[in-house]
Amino acid sequence: MRSFGADTRMPTLAAVLDLIRAHGAMSRVELAEATGLTAATMTHAVRKLIGLGLVHEVGTVPSNQGSPRRLLGIRSDARYMVGIQFDTYAGIGVVVDVAGDVVAQRDLPAPGRRTPEAVIADIAATVGLLLEDAAVPRERVLGIGLATYGPQDRKAGILLTPQPTPEWQGHPLAASLSEATGFPVAVENDATAAGIGIQTLGGSASSFAVVYMSGGIGAGLILDGHPYRGATSNGLELGHISVDAFGPPCDCGNRGCLDRVAGPTSIVAQALDHPALAERIERGADPLTAFLSIALAALGGDRAAADLIDTSTQRLAIATVTLVNLFDIGRVVLAGRAFTDIGPVYRDALQTMLDAAVFMRRVHTVQVELAPDVAQAPAVGAATVVLRNLLESPDAT
Amino acid sequence: MRSFGADTRMPTLAAVLDLIRAHGAMSRVELAEATGLTAATMTHAVRKLIGLGLVHEVGTVPSNQGSPRRLLGIRSDARYMVGIQFDTYAGIGVVVDVAGDVVAQRDLPAPGRRTPEAVIADIAATVGLLLEDAAVPRERVLGIGLATYGPQDRKAGILLTPQPTPEWQGHPLAASLSEATGFPVAVENDATAAGIGIQTLGGSASSFAVVYMSGGIGAGLILDGHPYRGATSNGLELGHISVDAFGPPCDCGNRGCLDRVAGPTSIVAQALDHPALAERIERGADPLTAFLSIALAALGGDRAAADLIDTSTQRLAIATVTLVNLFDIGRVVLAGRAFTDIGPVYRDALQTMLDAAVFMRRVHTVQVELAPDVAQAPAVGAATVVLRNLLESPDAT
Repeated sequence: MRSFGADTRMPTLAAVLDLIRAHGAMSRVELAEATGLTAATMTHAVRKLIGLGLVHEVGTVPSNQGSPRRLLGIRSDARYMVGIQFDTYAGIGVVVDVAGDVVAQRDLPAPGRRTPEAVIADIAATVGLLLEDAAVPRERVLGIGLATYGPQDRKAGILLTPQPTPEWQGHPLAASLSEATGFPVAVENDATAAGIGIQTLGGSASSFAVVYMSGGIGAGLILDGHPYRGATSNGLELGHISVDAFGPPCDCGNRGCLDRVAGPTSIVAQALDHPALAERIERGADPLTAFLSIALAALGGDRAAADLIDTSTQRLAIATVTLVNLFDIGRVVLAGRAFTDIGPVYRDALQTMLDAAVFMRRVHTVQVELAPDVAQAPAVGAATVVLRNLLESPDAT
Repeated sequence: MRSFGADTRMPTLAAVLDLIRAHGAMSRVELAEATGLTAATMTHAVRKLIGLGLVHEVGTVPSNQGSPRRLLGIRSDARYMVGIQFDTYAGIGVVVDVAGDVVAQRDLPAPGRRTPEAVIADIAATVGLLLEDAAVPRERVLGIGLATYGPQDRKAGILLTPQPTPEWQGHPLAASLSEATGFPVAVENDATAAGIGIQTLGGSASSFAVVYMSGGIGAGLILDGHPYRGATSNGLELGHISVDAFGPPCDCGNRGCLDRVAGPTSIVAQALDHPALAERIERGADPLTAFLSIALAALGGDRAAADLIDTSTQRLAIATVTLVNLFDIGRVVLAGRAFTDIGPVYRDALQTMLDAAVFMRRVHTVQVELAPDVAQAPAVGAATVVLRNLLESPDAT
């Protein structure tokens, strides 16, 4: 049974803010018309947005019914959100304003196998530097969104996995970073954050799947503008679906997991068997950095590198067919740092496979594309989550 | 962006009807309290249900505020729905009353490779016999729900696949059956219908996945009480996800499809290689009937049969891990005629695999169970779809 709460609630303030952001400046009457709501209801919503400091009146237009209509615009420099994405091998931070523009960006030191305390100290320092870069005063910061791998307890802000080391399991990630920075912290799945980030960065589709590859492989799903959450926001673990029923066992408990045969770690392990190719990988490089070197070698015409990338694309393509055949979705967007240079090769391989093998291809096509910024998208999405949480909180509505 | 239509609409009449069905008899005040809606809104909803002939006043209870409260109950014998499920190798029809009770049931002749016209004539004849069995006058019949395989255009009521013969592709299935019977016809995916049927038959969980096996393998997903639809209601094609990236090509365009290595057709083909086992299969039996014979042989201790069933359960279990890892769901229900006798073997094998291999098992467990009636569930769900369509139509609300 659909929850009555969901059926009877007001339109989200986020939706009204999105409309104003998309149109530039709108009157209350235009907003009411665009949403099908009464003028009184819209007046109430706009009052909330003004009270939160997110919207202000930017001018008037003549009306044929007496007094001129006041236009509402985004106060883009009134509030900012910090977004951080990290996995074992890489991290990135951004500052995003209320209009969705990225006003600062920095890479984080790779966490590697360090303790949560050390990594959180790095992140806190990076947050400080990002706010300096953007010249944003602390009081205008709504909070920090932290996108990372699962399984996780998103609401509690903790990871439920002993990756990369046992101390990480159950560590109070959100609480620790909040204590270190003084800002509220929201945790989000990285691939889901990438999907939200693609929306913020101007993706026009309201429904799409994200195929995500950074240190590992994951996926996300945006359905009618909202993330698919499942029971606990721990779904879409594309890297841990089996593409070979009798393949090698994985730490996750499954066999023949996609990540073990197509992910950066697997491709780098295979590359080290090719002496000429192994030489191109910097000694001591982490698997993601090494993968990016292999990708560049493949793009430069190295046969062994191209074969490895081909293995990875074919397996990822088969898993993407599974994703589409199960979720029935018309658009797939690639995001994550692993696609930095090699993204178009993966995009084309996935498109070819989907065109040939998707079960419902007689019903509709499936379009594959690259995210506007593959590495930045999850951090931008994490920042957006902070704003969405504020707009969806009972206090705000 | 969430659609405003969905956010602001009234609670579905279906939800109010479900409440009355679940509680036996309720007053308008109790209904308003249970839903959090105003008494005026609930009075309006109840008036609609009475107008549709689905609900009537069944008595009164004293009230401490003046006049006694009138109790509302289901008029279970006022309206009936027919539900039909068929695939190439089997079919079943039921008549269901407004309270969700099955008042008649019949098997259909297996369609095999006959033309749509011949199969529709069979279905129409069966509908007539079912209504005679149940002694239901035609004017009390709301319509026919028709559950079958995909890909399909559910709204247009046509199949978009050349299975089992080319004439089926694009045949106006719903329109033809409607013409043959004089009743409106709604088409639904069989595995999704099984999920809806499990709800009608008393399944208590509001979110669960269905793993469906009849002539082929499919899946369904009920999320917060509603079917997951994806872009075109053609998702959850579990039988056509690859469990072996370099396995045999499938007619669907994919390779190593689950249905080709674990479904009844595949298991029967393998059984014919065992002379002793082949003898137990009736000559000319269709693959589903033959599979049910192999299942009985396995249950009776036949080693070769048990090995084949084991192959099927292991592959289906791996695919079910994929389903759970992608949708993040806490309950899996098995439905479909292929589970008739052997269901508990599959249930136990899937439970073992899910306990060991599901990615989010540190976050929550996943429970596997059998549908209350594995063969009947999809037809009951198809019948329920007719009632839901009526309650969700703009005319009704």
